[in-house]
Amino acid sequence: MAETPIRFGILGCAEVSRKLSKKLSRAITLSPNSTIEAVGSDSFDEAKKFAAESGVPPSAKIYGSYEAVLDDPDVDAVYVPLPPKLHLRWAVLAAKKKKHFLLEKPVALNVTEFDQIVEACEANGVQFMDGTLWMHHPRTSKMKEFLSDKQRFGHLKTVHSFFSFAANDDFLKNDIRVKPDLDGLGALGDAGWYCIRSILWACDYVLPNTVTALHGSVLNESGVVLACGSSLQWEDGKTATFYCSFLSNMAMDITAVGTKGTLKVHDFIIPYEEKSASFSLASKTGFMEHVVTTDLPQEICMVREFLRLVRSIKECGSQTESRWLSISRKTQLVLDAVKASIEKGFEPTQVGI
Amino acid sequence: MAETPIRFGILGCAEVSRKLSKKLSRAITLSPNSTIEAVGSDSFDEAKKFAAESGVPPSAKIYGSYEAVLDDPDVDAVYVPLPPKLHLRWAVLAAKKKKHFLLEKPVALNVTEFDQIVEACEANGVQFMDGTLWMHHPRTSKMKEFLSDKQRFGHLKTVHSFFSFAANDDFLKNDIRVKPDLDGLGALGDAGWYCIRSILWACDYVLPNTVTALHGSVLNESGVVLACGSSLQWEDGKTATFYCSFLSNMAMDITAVGTKGTLKVHDFIIPYEEKSASFSLASKTGFMEHVVTTDLPQEICMVREFLRLVRSIKECGSQTESRWLSISRKTQLVLDAVKASIEKGFEPTQVGI
Repeated sequence: MAETPIRFGILGCAEVSRKLSKKLSRAITLSPNSTIEAVGSDSFDEAKKFAAESGVPPSAKIYGSYEAVLDDPDVDAVYVPLPPKLHLRWAVLAAKKKKHFLLEKPVALNVTEFDQIVEACEANGVQFMDGTLWMHHPRTSKMKEFLSDKQRFGHLKTVHSFFSFAANDDFLKNDIRVKPDLDGLGALGDAGWYCIRSILWACDYVLPNTVTALHGSVLNESGVVLACGSSLQWEDGKTATFYCSFLSNMAMDITAVGTKGTLKVHDFIIPYEEKSASFSLASKTGFMEHVVTTDLPQEICMVREFLRLVRSIKECGSQTESRWLSISRKTQLVLDAVKASIEKGFEPTQVGI
Repeated sequence: MAETPIRFGILGCAEVSRKLSKKLSRAITLSPNSTIEAVGSDSFDEAKKFAAESGVPPSAKIYGSYEAVLDDPDVDAVYVPLPPKLHLRWAVLAAKKKKHFLLEKPVALNVTEFDQIVEACEANGVQFMDGTLWMHHPRTSKMKEFLSDKQRFGHLKTVHSFFSFAANDDFLKNDIRVKPDLDGLGALGDAGWYCIRSILWACDYVLPNTVTALHGSVLNESGVVLACGSSLQWEDGKTATFYCSFLSNMAMDITAVGTKGTLKVHDFIIPYEEKSASFSLASKTGFMEHVVTTDLPQEICMVREFLRLVRSIKECGSQTESRWLSISRKTQLVLDAVKASIEKGFEPTQVGI
C-alpha cells in the first residue's frame, strides 16, 4: 500500500523567518510522500515571493493570511517559524484546526504560554514537534549510546554546553531575536535553547533542581539578552554549565564527563559537513574519534520523523507521541528559570515542574 | 666559554611527592649542564630509596633533612615538591639560603603566605618559578600567537577551562591533596590551579574583578574540595568559567572564544603525545588543526627556562625574572577568591590585588 501523502502548510514566510522557512521547505519537498500544499504570510505578496524563491511547487496555494492556511482542509500539518511572541496564538489555533505542527524554538515566551499549546494539542489529538534539528541527526543517538554505557561512560557528573555566533551589526539591530516586541528571549531563547536542550538530553531529561545564571550577562538597550550563561544543579550532585551568545565567534560544543568516560562534540547544532559528523570519546579503552555518516541532512531526518508520527496517526489511528511536548516543556522550564535568575540578580532559582 | 653547570637539590622525596620528584629529576638530569647535587627527605632512608629508584647520579649527596640540602654550599637551586602546607616554611628558608627554586603548585595556602615567599625571594635575589609545566610547552606560545591576533581572533570574550580526572579510592583516602593537614586546597589547588592559570594566561594576566563559585561543589568529610567550579567576571565584560574535579573522567580543555576566532585544546596540561601536540583554531579564514612538534617534553622545557634564568643571574649578574612571581601570585589571588566564595555560600567575591 502506498504511503499516505502528508500535505504541509508553511505559516509565516516574511523576511524575518525566511531562512528557516526555505530550509524546511526544501526538507519537506525532499521527503517522500510529503508536499507543500500552501504557504501563507500576513501579506499575499510576501507569500508569493517566498514561494517563487524557495522551490515551493507551483501547485501550492498562496495565502495572504496565516488563518487561511489553517482553514484549508487539504493541509494536514503546518510548519510555524513565526517570531516567538506569535507562537501562542498561532500554535493554539493550528491545534484547534486539527493541524499537526512543527514549531520553531523557543516554543513560547514562557511555560505558562506553552502549557496552553500543550493543552490545545492534547485536546485536539494533534502531533507536536519543535524545530531542534540536531536531535534528529543519527549522530545524536550514537552519542547517546555512549552516554548510556555504564561500562565505558559510567555515571554522568557534569556537562558543559556552549553555543555562540558573532552576529553582525544588522542582526544586532534588526533581527527578530533582538526585538523585545517579537522575541524577548534573545540569545537565551535562541542559542541558549540548544544548550539547555543538550544538557537535558545528556541527563535523560531529568530536570535540575536549581539554576543560577552567571554574572556577566549582556543585555541590549531593550533588555534582550545578547549573551549569558548559567550553572545548573541536580538532586544527585550532577552539575552543568552553559554559555550562549550572539557576540562571540562560532562555537557549538557539548562536553559531557562521566565517572569513566568523556564525550565531546564541536558542531552539535549544525554539523560542519552534511554527509558525515564526528564526535570523540575518551574512556579507559582509549581515545577515539567516531564518525557517523548520513545520506540525509538533519532537517530531512526531522521532517521524516514528524511525517512518520503524523502518518501513523492518520493511517493507523495511533496516539500522538507526547514525548516531544514533554521535552520542549522541560527545555522551556529551565529557560524560564535562567531568565528569572538573571532578573533576580543571578540568584539561585528553582526550576518549575 | 662553557656554560656554568647548575647544581640542583631535591627537597622532599617522600612517598607523597615521589611521582613529581621522579619526573623533575629526570628532566634535570636530561638538561644540559645541570646536575642533581643532593637529595633530601625528612628520613635518610626515604632519600636514599628515592635516589636509587630515580636515576639520581651516584655522586649525589643524600641527606636526612631538608635543611641539610639548603645548607649545602654546592647546591645552586632546589626543586620543592612538598605538600602545600610546608611551602611557606621551606620556600622562605630556601630563599634565605640563597637557593633559587622551582616550587610545586599550589604555591601556598593563600596569598598572605605567598607574599612572604615573594618577599624572601626579592630580599635574597633568588629566582622563583612554579611547576606549571604546560606554560613551557612550545604549543603554549603558538596558541598565544593566535589569541593575540586581532585579525583572526579579535577580542577575547569568554574562556572555559576544564580539568578533571577520576581519582581512585586510594587517592581519595590517602593522597596529600585530600588531606586538610597537608594541603587543604584539594581539587581547587591542584586541578583548579591549572584552570585558573589557563584563564589568566588567555586574558594576558589581567585579573578578574569578581569570581562566583558555582553551586554544586563537592567537599570530603574534612572539608577539602573534591570538585568545584567558578565563574569569573572582568571589568570589560569578559567572562570565564572553569570546572575542576577529582571525581570525573579525564578532561583537560581550554576553549577561548573571541569576537572573530575560537581556540580549542584538549590536552593542555599533559599533551597526549610527548613529541607533538595539537590545538584547533576556527576563524573566518576557516577551521584548522595546528600541530606543534617538540623534541623535548614540557618538563625539560621548564627546567631549561629556569636554568637559563639562574645562569643569567650567576654568570651575568642579571636581575631575577619577577614575571613568574607575579603570575603565581595572580593565580593564587583568584584561587583564594574562589575558595572564599565557596565558603560564603557561592557569593560573588572580589579578587584581591
